[in-house]
Amino acid sequence: MRFAAFAALAAKQPLSPYEYEPAPLRPQDVEIQISHCGICHSDLHLIDNDWSSSTYPLVPGHEIVGTVTAVGRDCALALGQRVGVGWQRSACFECEQCLAGAENLCARQEATCVGHMGGFARRIRLDGRFAFPLPESLDAAAAAPLLCAGVTVFAPLRRWRVAAGAHVGVIGIGGLGHLAIRFLRAMGSETTAFSSSPDKRDEVERLGAQHVVSSTSVREIRASANRLDFLLCTAPARLDWITYLETLKPNGVLCLVGAPPGLLQIPAAQLLTSQRAICGSDIGSRDAIREMLAFAADHGIGAQVETAPMADVNGALQRVRTNRVRYRMVLTN
Amino acid sequence: MRFAAFAALAAKQPLSPYEYEPAPLRPQDVEIQISHCGICHSDLHLIDNDWSSSTYPLVPGHEIVGTVTAVGRDCALALGQRVGVGWQRSACFECEQCLAGAENLCARQEATCVGHMGGFARRIRLDGRFAFPLPESLDAAAAAPLLCAGVTVFAPLRRWRVAAGAHVGVIGIGGLGHLAIRFLRAMGSETTAFSSSPDKRDEVERLGAQHVVSSTSVREIRASANRLDFLLCTAPARLDWITYLETLKPNGVLCLVGAPPGLLQIPAAQLLTSQRAICGSDIGSRDAIREMLAFAADHGIGAQVETAPMADVNGALQRVRTNRVRYRMVLTN
Repeated sequence: MRFAAFAALAAKQPLSPYEYEPAPLRPQDVEIQISHCGICHSDLHLIDNDWSSSTYPLVPGHEIVGTVTAVGRDCALALGQRVGVGWQRSACFECEQCLAGAENLCARQEATCVGHMGGFARRIRLDGRFAFPLPESLDAAAAAPLLCAGVTVFAPLRRWRVAAGAHVGVIGIGGLGHLAIRFLRAMGSETTAFSSSPDKRDEVERLGAQHVVSSTSVREIRASANRLDFLLCTAPARLDWITYLETLKPNGVLCLVGAPPGLLQIPAAQLLTSQRAICGSDIGSRDAIREMLAFAADHGIGAQVETAPMADVNGALQRVRTNRVRYRMVLTN
Repeated sequence: MRFAAFAALAAKQPLSPYEYEPAPLRPQDVEIQISHCGICHSDLHLIDNDWSSSTYPLVPGHEIVGTVTAVGRDCALALGQRVGVGWQRSACFECEQCLAGAENLCARQEATCVGHMGGFARRIRLDGRFAFPLPESLDAAAAAPLLCAGVTVFAPLRRWRVAAGAHVGVIGIGGLGHLAIRFLRAMGSETTAFSSSPDKRDEVERLGAQHVVSSTSVREIRASANRLDFLLCTAPARLDWITYLETLKPNGVLCLVGAPPGLLQIPAAQLLTSQRAICGSDIGSRDAIREMLAFAADHGIGAQVETAPMADVNGALQRVRTNRVRYRMVLTN
């Protein structure tokens, strides 16, 4: 049996139909027939080998929804069950981080589509402990992006205890940012969206942001000085960090979930005198994914997506590359 | 009535005997007869006008211990009561930060010896809500540095919930750092001291550190990679932040309590992939001071001090300037 997929055969190449022999099903493994797979900007970075970690043929895709078609003898999932898979496909389950329920910080973790064949495919096999049962009420296409984009923004809000009534800023209103706004609305936060596309203003308000600030106007950003308890930056870009830090109240936290190139350059006094913090956050633990999916189901939250048949993967990738998608592209089988 | 004090009459000048007419005692005010006053590096910065905030004549001193000699009609303190005063002498008690019990972050706060006459004096008057009853068991000389140095290191450990069993690093073993080590020992933490004076090793171990690392050896710092939950930097110096950040475990926090000059320059990826944070902390709230004093009394913690008569203030300042004091100089009346 071979699995049909789409693969980049070399860096920066369009994807081609590709078949591969799957690894044998180990006791903990699950096999999933994929119905949907979101396209994340990380997939583009992997195709282009931007992180020098790619190996080819490379099958991208790590926002997967599908149904269980086979299970190893120790896998707790049931045949026919609908599940989702995100960035991570395994962990050691033995280290300090795994013991603390932070498998996303395990040094021996493996990613779904780095060194393994990902979700732009008909089927996939991976450790069943990283396939998450999907609450029934979640639409499959809208749920696929929750598995990576969704938990990436949900996990830091949870870990930093962002509470009802908190004033939260979100920089970058794309795949991650629009989900952050939806989560924050449901959490009872007051949200300020910083967007470089002022034409998104009405849409962003409909997503649940109370305030929309043009991120291209230093003057507008400055008008939010000293207002935010938490500022989530989803834009992997070199920004005016000093001005953004000033939007934080005392004890406020700037959290990066996308890595800007180069160095952050910050005067220490800006952290000291108002007790501000800068931190990073990296996907989410299994428990965070479980809780995020339950929260999304309870509050009717899904991604706003465009869909395209898997066969049109190259056209879909091109729309993502040119930032034309609002807000997430999802491939369907 | 005039108060006898020692003042710098201009920037970088030795202090001279100086008398001033105290402000009238307001309803919330207390008047304190000063028995002890610690010398903090901030006093040198104020004398030298390093922060461009000094006005002259300038009476330094903000680690004050003394007894109450007069109270305004709304002051809750009792005549003869022993109290301590730190960096802060007032707050608005109306803003969001004050309402949240974070008076140290009040935008309208006033400092004990910035624009007011400080503790290198016989007496002082200030808002009695910033004079803290001292537990009886605390020695006055050893307690004086707790009011600024002590709470500056205690408050972030408390706010960041540094718990028993945590592995904590302390950079810089001086007035602040040696108190941090004593607090951490009493909190049940495992402490690694990073010191530029390898000859302090035995002493630092006696203070309670389990490990002593030479901060002048990148190799030695690197040997602590991935070991710390929390790293408190008391050295206001430009350090190798990238190497120090690597000593933090995933989710670890680097906390600055002294402001290094220039910019922090940090690759964002170093924060992202291990979910590390960098933050600052600035003295402590009234509640933090109250709790710190109770904790110090419960655990027999005070500063290791040298004392000098107030009249020898210039000689004492010189010993502080040349870093010869272990670990805090305290002036006595």
